[in-house]
Amino acid sequence: MPTGAEGGEGVRSVVRALELLALFDGTHRSRSVRELTDATGLPKSTVVRLVTTLEQNGLLWTSTNGRLTPGAGLLRWAQLAHDAWQLPPEAVECLRALSSESGGESSRIYVRQGLSRLCVAQHEGTQQLRHVVRIGEAMPLWAGASGHVLLAGCSAKELHRAAMAAARGPEFESALAERVDRAAAQDWAVSHGEREHGVSAVAAPITDPDGRIVAAVGLGGPTSRFTAENVAAFLPALSRAATRLSELRFIGGGS
Amino acid sequence: MPTGAEGGEGVRSVVRALELLALFDGTHRSRSVRELTDATGLPKSTVVRLVTTLEQNGLLWTSTNGRLTPGAGLLRWAQLAHDAWQLPPEAVECLRALSSESGGESSRIYVRQGLSRLCVAQHEGTQQLRHVVRIGEAMPLWAGASGHVLLAGCSAKELHRAAMAAARGPEFESALAERVDRAAAQDWAVSHGEREHGVSAVAAPITDPDGRIVAAVGLGGPTSRFTAENVAAFLPALSRAATRLSELRFIGGGS
Repeated sequence: MPTGAEGGEGVRSVVRALELLALFDGTHRSRSVRELTDATGLPKSTVVRLVTTLEQNGLLWTSTNGRLTPGAGLLRWAQLAHDAWQLPPEAVECLRALSSESGGESSRIYVRQGLSRLCVAQHEGTQQLRHVVRIGEAMPLWAGASGHVLLAGCSAKELHRAAMAAARGPEFESALAERVDRAAAQDWAVSHGEREHGVSAVAAPITDPDGRIVAAVGLGGPTSRFTAENVAAFLPALSRAATRLSELRFIGGGS
Repeated sequence: MPTGAEGGEGVRSVVRALELLALFDGTHRSRSVRELTDATGLPKSTVVRLVTTLEQNGLLWTSTNGRLTPGAGLLRWAQLAHDAWQLPPEAVECLRALSSESGGESSRIYVRQGLSRLCVAQHEGTQQLRHVVRIGEAMPLWAGASGHVLLAGCSAKELHRAAMAAARGPEFESALAERVDRAAAQDWAVSHGEREHGVSAVAAPITDPDGRIVAAVGLGGPTSRFTAENVAAFLPALSRAATRLSELRFIGGGS
């Protein structure tokens, strides 16, 4: 894709700018240039240049105490995201019901984005020990039940690229292919501690009217509660949720 | 700030990527590469390169019909924007009351971002003919009552740069300085049709405990309803809102 030196440099700057923005989250609501430099390992001059550009475009903001915070220009993106990804009430209810029927695990919907999966909706579990992910954050496709379900809808080439992204050596690709094949055959997947130690998940595909996999719906929680017995008990509710969410046809349309 | 050829190219790519994203809004919820090429005047290869980068980072998404839509990665920025810019309930109520006391004009809060002003909150008017702006969108600082109020808190150098950005010739700077001086002296400003024909606004400064201008609060509506008499009638409510919003101290803190 980079089309020579100029294209490569431009793309790299865009990626770096987004990486800088990604360093702001609920626990890091403000940052200094020094912190951004330390966190990225980029030269200070590069960070200053990107921060200035992001500031001029409203994505960062210098607060009165001199620290950088998310800028008001992000509000425009928030509106876009809301318009494009807001779940219809029936789908929200579906996630709530799935969480409730699992005894209070967190339920969520993931979509594939390149070699990543992104959580686009979540109903937080009611258990004191619950698993919460960040909405819109990229997670690897090669790890976790919902990743395997999403890969079941991918080409062999995409599966290869997802396996390569894991950087776990050549055996990993066949192991991953086996997991994905099983997910495709049984229409669900389960995973234990693949992305995060102690966290388990089950997931099932959401499909479009042509049967293509457009998203995954799943439950996540501590591995201690995802015993074989409990997972088997989760499956009927998971399957019902996947069928209902497929019927609602709210993902991937674009008007 | 561009630090030579490499820096300039990188910054340009970031700005272009953000410009592409800005082409998506409530009336353009999906776009083709062709439409993006036409709208920006950029070479197709550049658009494809930037779109691919934005897609890989979750900011754009190819829907099943092949058109580009805002990506799920924006949901993460939505959360950030919400955390950073959500108005406290008292401020929301303040905007609602101001709108109501003006007979139903739209009330809003603007902050300065470089040479732009951004609307960070809005209470839509109740009149059938009402003026609505996009939250988070950049508008020029040199035009409009809230721009003049925000410029009253700026240095002479910033005022100069804002005037240059208007590209209206050398006389414009002294005319703008006069408008800004008046806004500073009387603590409010009014404008008619400066940014958009037929639209008028009044605004007043929101200040921090040290008296520095951190934002502007204003009313906007059709020029036909912003007669001298009506504007005079709006001022007491506007002044009360500005005082109350300043007391709430919710802007520019950063934790």
